[in-house]
Parts: sequence; structure tokens; C-alpha cells
Amino acid sequence: MATYLPKHVKWPHFTLLGLVLAAGLATALKKGEVLDMTYKYDNVTTQRWAGSPAFDLTILQRGPTPSIPWLEMNKFSTAEHFGTHMDAPAHAAKGMWRVDQIPPRNLVGPAVRVDVSAKAAANADYQLSPADLTDWVSANGPIPDGALLFVYTGYGAHWTNRFAYYGYAGEDDYLDADGNSLLHFPGISEAAATWLVDNTQVSGVGIDSASLDYGPSVGFEVHQILLQENIFGLENVANVDLLPTTGATAYALPMKIGDGSGGPVRIIAMLTENADGGSNQLRVDYAALLVVGISIIMKAIL
Amino acid sequence: MATYLPKHVKWPHFTLLGLVLAAGLATALKKGEVLDMTYKYDNVTTQRWAGSPAFDLTILQRGPTPSIPWLEMNKFSTAEHFGTHMDAPAHAAKGMWRVDQIPPRNLVGPAVRVDVSAKAAANADYQLSPADLTDWVSANGPIPDGALLFVYTGYGAHWTNRFAYYGYAGEDDYLDADGNSLLHFPGISEAAATWLVDNTQVSGVGIDSASLDYGPSVGFEVHQILLQENIFGLENVANVDLLPTTGATAYALPMKIGDGSGGPVRIIAMLTENADGGSNQLRVDYAALLVVGISIIMKAIL
Repeated sequence: MATYLPKHVKWPHFTLLGLVLAAGLATALKKGEVLDMTYKYDNVTTQRWAGSPAFDLTILQRGPTPSIPWLEMNKFSTAEHFGTHMDAPAHAAKGMWRVDQIPPRNLVGPAVRVDVSAKAAANADYQLSPADLTDWVSANGPIPDGALLFVYTGYGAHWTNRFAYYGYAGEDDYLDADGNSLLHFPGISEAAATWLVDNTQVSGVGIDSASLDYGPSVGFEVHQILLQENIFGLENVANVDLLPTTGATAYALPMKIGDGSGGPVRIIAMLTENADGGSNQLRVDYAALLVVGISIIMKAIL
Repeated sequence: MATYLPKHVKWPHFTLLGLVLAAGLATALKKGEVLDMTYKYDNVTTQRWAGSPAFDLTILQRGPTPSIPWLEMNKFSTAEHFGTHMDAPAHAAKGMWRVDQIPPRNLVGPAVRVDVSAKAAANADYQLSPADLTDWVSANGPIPDGALLFVYTGYGAHWTNRFAYYGYAGEDDYLDADGNSLLHFPGISEAAATWLVDNTQVSGVGIDSASLDYGPSVGFEVHQILLQENIFGLENVANVDLLPTTGATAYALPMKIGDGSGGPVRIIAMLTENADGGSNQLRVDYAALLVVGISIIMKAIL
């Protein structure tokens, strides 16, 4: 009976396959699920950046009309830079891409999560460091070209609490009389932003706090460093706690505002089709198994 | 070389595989490319639905500031239902999903394109018929569960010409004094909408004209039929001429407006990872073969 097994197929191949499948199943995000990394915009929960015009939804129609049993329609107004939104490169870098000019290919990429939540819990002004990135690479391998890199600070837990989220509850200005920032929340250090520019080909950088630059920033240097390289930003990203460290693909699709400097973005993540990293390899394995399987079945039948 | 090929694998299998791959390569959309199926919103080209508040972008800052060499920021206002936008089920069906309630999984699905462009070119009031759908199924196989179905009328070619696109240039109302519609553009027939509800499990239906219902509609019956089933609509979809008939996956990610009846949506399509058309089917086939293969091997050994 053992003669049905082609002798070059070894048991370790199946054990290995089992391990690969088990690794895929062990992540929080399940195959086929879509992780929504977006907060809704509404008149109550959406916190504007201090000094910015607020989001406002106005109901135009909600009920029956003479011609249709039920009709809902609204209008809304908003500034571009609060809520779960994209900073297009032009936001802080003259001549770089506005939001409608970003190549669509750059809006999709391998999702990379760098976890600094323990450090941010201990220090509201924590800034992602180059060491956080090199440690990540040591543990997980190179940051893939075209990646969307998400900094996980844990600040999503504070989203509905303006004071906890921004470190300051005021809505009209974020600078004191001396021009110093009143805000406290974690961000990215200039050195880490420079490291990303020098060592990776990421398409975008996201964070689950209010800004790429940490709360005390006044000059928004990290914005300048990244956006000057046509790397877009994603701020107030939701559910980063549920994103796996690797193995997912992220889709960050902004509203296509002509000449926009950014704006509302819908971000989702799904497990990458054929598990992380070696997706093509896995497909080759299946194809090889297909050939082997057919040969076994045909031999059994004939 | 031939010695590595299990002897029961016949060359016709590879010929068939080659044909499938060739069919995939013949589409306009290339592997790895992202097709943007979205028009930009701006103050000039975005045509509002007659009677609706218009889109308006206002520049808040575009230039240097005391603290940063370059800063661009804007605010905008818009109604939900023009431009490339989503009709959430609640738009025309009481109690159905509002735009923030649609399960994210429904926003991603196999893209299906039904081409009625020749008929719409001959008749501005053409309505997709059940026969158009059954003919499509005869030629291409079943419409996959969870599909996003796009009706290709060719009206995208008229997008920048309000009169040609709507069949009427007025911006203030679309009904005449007798309550009849002044509009002319192609849409979907009530019978075709009912056929989709009865025979498929599509998640959404898109069209490259101004509405799911054709121009002369006053009661928006097609909206009611589809939205009542929690099937969302996509209107003014761009670049449907470049979408393959099958073989792509579409991502329709709307702005997440709390209690919104719809709104701006960014739609992209990419060739499905595992070749065209029956990608899921193909994967199921592999999985079934894996099970069969393992059972045969175990039977052979035990």
C-alpha cells in the first residue's frame, strides 16, 4: 500500500504544512475577516484638532416623501485633519502629492505593526525610536517595500476621552501664550522617521494617536521628514490592538478630494491571501500537491 | 526533466492550466496594478444631483507658517449623494444598514462587470434586463456570493459634460411642473433588480451612471428593491471600461459617517490573487484535493 506514496514526498513536508497553517490560525484576525481600522465621524464622538472647524452632519431628509416610502439624506462639513484621516504629502511638503495624486498602488500594502504600547503607557510623551524599529526588524525580518507601517501606542483606548487622548481638553488652541504645546500623547521621533526614510521603502506610516509628531511638537518635524519623501501619514487609526505584527495587508483608501491635503480615510486590514511572507511559495506547494494528488488518484484508479 | 513528472499526470492538464493563465493575462488590468474607480471631488468637475447642496472646498492654509515651512489644510462641505458615492441601504429602506453599519466584509468582493454599453449608446434610457444577467451567467458562470456587480453603461465617457451625463443640464430640480423626470441616462430595471435579489448573494451593485434607477424614474423602485435587502449601491463609478468581466476583486470603502445614508466612497479593483474568475473555487478545489491526498496517503500507510 505504501507504494502509492511517491517516494520523494516526505512526512516532514506535511508537518511543515501543518505548522504554517497553525501559525495562520493563531492570529487574532481570522482568515476572511476584515478588520476596520476606522473611527466613525459624528457630531458627538469625533474630536477635532484644537482650533480646527468641527465635523457637522445635518439631516436633509429622514422619513417618507411623496414619491418614496423612506428616504434618508444628509449633508456634512468637516476639516481634513481629524478623525481617522490621511495626511497627504502636500500637507507639510510643498510640491509633493496631494491626496488625489497619490498612486493608488501606494494605498495598499503589507501591514506592519510596531508595538510601543508599554512604553507609551509609562510615558505620555513617548516617541518611537530607531531602536524600536531595529528591534522589530531583528525579530520579524525586513520591513517590506510598499508597507503601511502602524505604530501601536495603545492610545486608541482613550479615543472617546478628549483629555486622556490629547493630554489637554481645550478645543480652541493647542499652544499656550508662550507658543508651547499644551498637548501630551505619543508619536514618532525625528530619528525614527529618518531611519524609515533611509532604510525602508514604506508607502505610509500610521499611528493610533492624534499625530505622527508627539504632543509637545510645535514644528511637526516628523511630518516634514516623511511627507517630503511622499510617504503619507495616517492618524487616529482605530483597532491597531487587533492588527497582527505581520501577515496582514492594509488598504487605506482616502476620500478623493481634488487638491486635498488629506482627509477622511477608510482603513481596513485582511490577512494576506496566502499567509505572511511566502505567499507565492505556499501556492507553489499547493500546486505541487495538486500534481502529486492527481498522480496518486489516477494510479489508484487505473 | 520528464523523470520528475509523476507518470499519471497528462500533458492536457498543463495545456488547460496554460489556457487559464493566458486568459488572466489577456485582461487590461495587470497583476499588481490598482484600478481607481473613483472620480475626485472638486468645486469644478463634481456635478451635484439637481437640487442638492454642492461640494465646496475652502482653503484654510496653503503656504508657510511661523512654525513650519509649508502647510496645506482645507475644509469642505458636501451632500452624501453625488460624485462617486455609496448608497447605504438606509438611504431608501427604513431600518436597514446606515453607511457605518455595513459589515466591512461586505465592502470587499469579487468584481463582476455586466456590459450593456452598446445598448445604452443606442438608448439613453436603457435599463439592465434580466436577460442581460442570465446571458452573463451563461457566458461566465454563476455570480459569486459576496460579489460587487458593476453595470457598465459607458456613461463614464460623459462624466465632465453635465448635459450628456444626466440628459438635462439644470442644477436646481430634476422634475418638471407635472412631476415627471427631466433626466435621461441608463440604469437597472426593476425586473433585473428582483432577479439579483432572487438569484444571487451580491453585497453591492454599482453603475457608471448617476443612479441605479434610470433617468426617467421618479419612485426609485430599484433602490427600494436592492436596499431593502441590505445590498448597497455605488453610483458614478469611474473607469468601469477598464474593469475585466471577471477576475478582479473590488474594494469599495466609504467614508465612515456615523448614521450616514451613504457618502463619498473610494473604490479600487485589483486582479484577484489566485487567477481569474473562480479564485475561491480554485482554492476550494486545492483544499479538497489536499484532504483526498492525505486520506489516500494515510490509507496507504496504515
